[in-house]
Amino acid sequence: MRFFSDNAAPAHPKVLEAIAEANRLDTAYDGDEWSRRLDGAFSDLFGTQVRAFWVTTGTAANCLALAALCPPYRAILCHRDAHIEVDEAGAPGFFTGGAKLILLDGEGAKISPAAVREACDAIRNDVHQVQPAAISITNATEYGLVYRASEVAALGDVAKERGLALHMDGARIANALVSTGASLADLTWRAGVDALSFGFVKNGGLNAEALILFRTDLADEIAVRRKRAGHLLSKGRYLAAQLLAMLDGDLWLENARASNAAAQQLAQAAPQRLVYPVEANEIFLKITSEEAQRLRGMGFDFYDWGPGQIRLVTSWDQQGSELESLAAAIASL
Amino acid sequence: MRFFSDNAAPAHPKVLEAIAEANRLDTAYDGDEWSRRLDGAFSDLFGTQVRAFWVTTGTAANCLALAALCPPYRAILCHRDAHIEVDEAGAPGFFTGGAKLILLDGEGAKISPAAVREACDAIRNDVHQVQPAAISITNATEYGLVYRASEVAALGDVAKERGLALHMDGARIANALVSTGASLADLTWRAGVDALSFGFVKNGGLNAEALILFRTDLADEIAVRRKRAGHLLSKGRYLAAQLLAMLDGDLWLENARASNAAAQQLAQAAPQRLVYPVEANEIFLKITSEEAQRLRGMGFDFYDWGPGQIRLVTSWDQQGSELESLAAAIASL
Amino acid sequence: MRFFSDNAAPAHPKVLEAIAEANRLDTAYDGDEWSRRLDGAFSDLFGTQVRAFWVTTGTAANCLALAALCPPYRAILCHRDAHIEVDEAGAPGFFTGGAKLILLDGEGAKISPAAVREACDAIRNDVHQVQPAAISITNATEYGLVYRASEVAALGDVAKERGLALHMDGARIANALVSTGASLADLTWRAGVDALSFGFVKNGGLNAEALILFRTDLADEIAVRRKRAGHLLSKGRYLAAQLLAMLDGDLWLENARASNAAAQQLAQAAPQRLVYPVEANEIFLKITSEEAQRLRGMGFDFYDWGPGQIRLVTSWDQQGSELESLAAAIASL
Amino acid sequence: MRFFSDNAAPAHPKVLEAIAEANRLDTAYDGDEWSRRLDGAFSDLFGTQVRAFWVTTGTAANCLALAALCPPYRAILCHRDAHIEVDEAGAPGFFTGGAKLILLDGEGAKISPAAVREACDAIRNDVHQVQPAAISITNATEYGLVYRASEVAALGDVAKERGLALHMDGARIANALVSTGASLADLTWRAGVDALSFGFVKNGGLNAEALILFRTDLADEIAVRRKRAGHLLSKGRYLAAQLLAMLDGDLWLENARASNAAAQQLAQAAPQRLVYPVEANEIFLKITSEEAQRLRGMGFDFYDWGPGQIRLVTSWDQQGSELESLAAAIASL
Repeated sequence: MRFFSDNAAPAHPKVLEAIAEANRLDTAYDGDEWSRRLDGAFSDLFGTQVRAFWVTTGTAANCLALAALCPPYRAILCHRDAHIEVDEAGAPGFFTGGAKLILLDGEGAKISPAAVREACDAIRNDVHQVQPAAISITNATEYGLVYRASEVAALGDVAKERGLALHMDGARIANALVSTGASLADLTWRAGVDALSFGFVKNGGLNAEALILFRTDLADEIAVRRKRAGHLLSKGRYLAAQLLAMLDGDLWLENARASNAAAQQLAQAAPQRLVYPVEANEIFLKITSEEAQRLRGMGFDFYDWGPGQIRLVTSWDQQGSELESLAAAIASL
Repeated sequence: MRFFSDNAAPAHPKVLEAIAEANRLDTAYDGDEWSRRLDGAFSDLFGTQVRAFWVTTGTAANCLALAALCPPYRAILCHRDAHIEVDEAGAPGFFTGGAKLILLDGEGAKISPAAVREACDAIRNDVHQVQPAAISITNATEYGLVYRASEVAALGDVAKERGLALHMDGARIANALVSTGASLADLTWRAGVDALSFGFVKNGGLNAEALILFRTDLADEIAVRRKRAGHLLSKGRYLAAQLLAMLDGDLWLENARASNAAAQQLAQAAPQRLVYPVEANEIFLKITSEEAQRLRGMGFDFYDWGPGQIRLVTSWDQQGSELESLAAAIASL
Repeated sequence: MRFFSDNAAPAHPKVLEAIAEANRLDTAYDGDEWSRRLDGAFSDLFGTQVRAFWVTTGTAANCLALAALCPPYRAILCHRDAHIEVDEAGAPGFFTGGAKLILLDGEGAKISPAAVREACDAIRNDVHQVQPAAISITNATEYGLVYRASEVAALGDVAKERGLALHMDGARIANALVSTGASLADLTWRAGVDALSFGFVKNGGLNAEALILFRTDLADEIAVRRKRAGHLLSKGRYLAAQLLAMLDGDLWLENARASNAAAQQLAQAAPQRLVYPVEANEIFLKITSEEAQRLRGMGFDFYDWGPGQIRLVTSWDQQGSELESLAAAIASL
Repeated sequence: MRFFSDNAAPAHPKVLEAIAEANRLDTAYDGDEWSRRLDGAFSDLFGTQVRAFWVTTGTAANCLALAALCPPYRAILCHRDAHIEVDEAGAPGFFTGGAKLILLDGEGAKISPAAVREACDAIRNDVHQVQPAAISITNATEYGLVYRASEVAALGDVAKERGLALHMDGARIANALVSTGASLADLTWRAGVDALSFGFVKNGGLNAEALILFRTDLADEIAVRRKRAGHLLSKGRYLAAQLLAMLDGDLWLENARASNAAAQQLAQAAPQRLVYPVEANEIFLKITSEEAQRLRGMGFDFYDWGPGQIRLVTSWDQQGSELESLAAAIASL
């Protein structure tokens, strides 16, 4: 019974069906009918005109966006534990041509407007120091916390105030949305987000993510950068079809509700052990290595997360029986 | 009836089945059982120890290889019409960090050892001029010609003589192999190829290509570069499974035989119109724009290729009836 | 007696004097009084508002300008024999982050509006092909020819027509100016030039070149890029003082007149041997290797330039006696 | 009376004389007799075979070295306050093609072997996290502290242990050497340093710094990278001559002794105000802004260094009378 990553879960059957339905001749690259429906489908979803690009990884979505938002000689402000800093092999440096990440502190991998202001204020405005160009936040964060719409808006305000772009890594945006109850518009573009990496793979997709541009003027550059980075697949319809299937009937929300609910079930088993409030589908528990071993002995898989902590991640397809067993096991430790 | 690109054809049903079979929980990235079988499966296929990486595009395969074979301050020799020069949006410059492509001439997009030597001899050996580090050839070429094993070996010899690495863009390696009748070993590593972009998508795959390293010492660097370029998918098993399905029962050869045979059928309809000998699955015909219009009027789709020429590409799934109609139509022009 | 390069000549005594005079305490980098006078001095010289930056090499001037004029994913049109292509070790690729040089043909390293248009027309306007962003020309060219003001203006027109920026590598702009008799304004910004690498080192300077921006909106970016490339010297006053000394009393024009006149003297010694008309300070002669050997035997130094040709370059300090001897020697061959 | 930067001081008269003496024809670039003497002169100085390159800035020296020591996809460990991180406009990211700086803490901008080990241990050895390739230290540090030979050797040991290269930013290496009394060999290559940015400009030079390679196998690559970065000046003899003049008669040591002694004189005026021990030519004092104003009122120039601190830097040419006045003024606050 596995709780190590939502990255490892299978794809939702409707996603596979969509791929099968797309398995007929069409134009190559993104000229096919599925790809051509993306701008409209996502514009409807967000309630504003957007440009939508399929890509196959969150790293590609994040770094294509950052490359368009930050020139090589400037910097991106992000949390010290942000995925772009910690787990993307330096991809932002590669895609931007050497831009710098300026690392901010903040509980649970969240950054605050105050932290952004302080970081900006510490930079002398001259050619010797790298000037910031963008902020990147992750929602839900790497520790399973969420930014509420008002919190994003506060960061959007400081971004505007300081002349910075705002990028959101939404690998788990669905979980954040469901958790906060905000509208998608309020959580993103109305709050000042310029570009969103809209995650689907952790949420039941197979291998399609979306890069959403609220600044539609960047679309031509992103299209070129996507090709130049080897991310323009020749049979793009199989990606576009996945995204459309996830949007269809709000499957993406249904899946996120399932994984969030699964996380709550586990969180309630041992509230006193929680390192962070559980706001999405990740649970960090204080636990001894002996206890961790006992859980593993019962057949549960998960990652250690530094000394005395473990991380559990729930997925869209988590079975009730698995959850009950694990909840009981944790409660009994 | 479409003859505009093998990129546009559907995936083979067995590829879709393999994806469906892989739709169960496994480790993320390339730690899953399918991905872990790739090195062995391709080593068996090539008859030597290789390292095999899945990627989603030929551009990624080509440029990851070139970045490992050529430092930013050196150059890659390739044909003026090579895909890496003409159709990859400058991706080699991006992946290598600014390495230069030195463009060679040669009939049908083939380069000769003499052309390589001449280009090298024209470069002063000083710090002012960019020194070459690698040769990249495409087999089959962008004009549907093939390099025979002996021709590759002759380029392998000049590569060794000049201290250059040798990369093969094998987007249509299956068609070349079937056409030449060579063994895969003779056409690649025994001929001195260091890295091969092994194409599957044009040959019945869905979205998985393979990068094969005969220089296995480059594997660690390539693994990092793949991640850094956003090409390490989180559910890699769906790519690995495609590749294994294509190798299984030599499906990749079967598909290539079909598309090559289809091309021959068309070629024989109008031998006097051929711009190049038809050696793989591409046919370039001399044709007036009025004739082209007539063909299109009959329902055939294809690309114009400069004034007075059209390009037809056949696919693994081309129907006999389509072929007969087109052959007859061409013959009757 | 050396005629191999104006790069090798000594600096003019007034340049050394200016350095000595600047040898007192002042603010570091470019905050000193000499550096602060550059914008004004060059604006006066050009008759329009410019921003002027000292750098130490033509390569730095060229490539800083090109990096500001061309994003990493686009291309610069230049002559096949341009210094940026042939003799800068791939620096444009480094500074731009991988932009491509598209190489044009043209007699004597000059490019024509027709060649630019033809190259642009050959590029499909899609994401697969690298779109052009700038033209770079060298005046005087690498073969000692000059673009007249009207010729630059014609290129400026095509640049505007195609949405391209126009850069001029003016390593020998002084020689070109003196040769054409044009005004500096007509030869540059009035003709549509956006950025000029204004050479002084080949013309009697010690180690200071100037980068002139007619598009003053690029100045902030260039200032950062200069620092980031390690080209912001900490004691910039020694560079600024050189430039001011060269402008003072039109020393730069005086020097260029001297080297141009020297070249004419040699050209007239053997008009039938000239490969190109001599319009600046370079002379290319058709000569057998036996004849070349005889000249060297008489104590003359110069470069061979491919089979059957030699290159002679005259400098600001060339002695009359040297010139007479060489002219006589050539005439007597 | 200025104490704001050794960067602002004039050049030593012997440096200017050397430039004047070099003002005669010679081969361009680094083919001249002065440049050709550098390898020998520095090899003698260090007591081992080195390769020596002139450049015009410390940024260029640092970043050329780092680019050769660290591939684009790896990281350099350095102090959080290191010049390469704080004051070079992101040049390491530019020269390396996007390598990452991992920032370490440590008193007075010094890093310890323990800090290096801790940072390395925190990096998972997989493709998701950026693996370190090099350590860069500054000696004397940005806060005027020095690494003793044994401290460098301890870092050299941890570098070897972890498979890392070791770079030393020696913008003030002369001050460190004089301060520690170590031999140049013990402070550098015997301690495991692979490449040294050997500063001269802050120590009486005009615009020549040296990059010293103890790993002479990197010399060919560095030569190309120097050209590619626009740092191969066409009249290199004026730089080489400066370096030779600084070495001649140990002028570089004499100058460093003078600036160090000047710093000691100031330090002794108010030992209780020192933020750090004064070990080179920088003095950081705790001082109120009112006191700072009074000093300025007396004609002393210096930088504020955060709230409640100022930085004084002494230079090779500091006059005794200036020092006595400032010492007295500080003592009297």
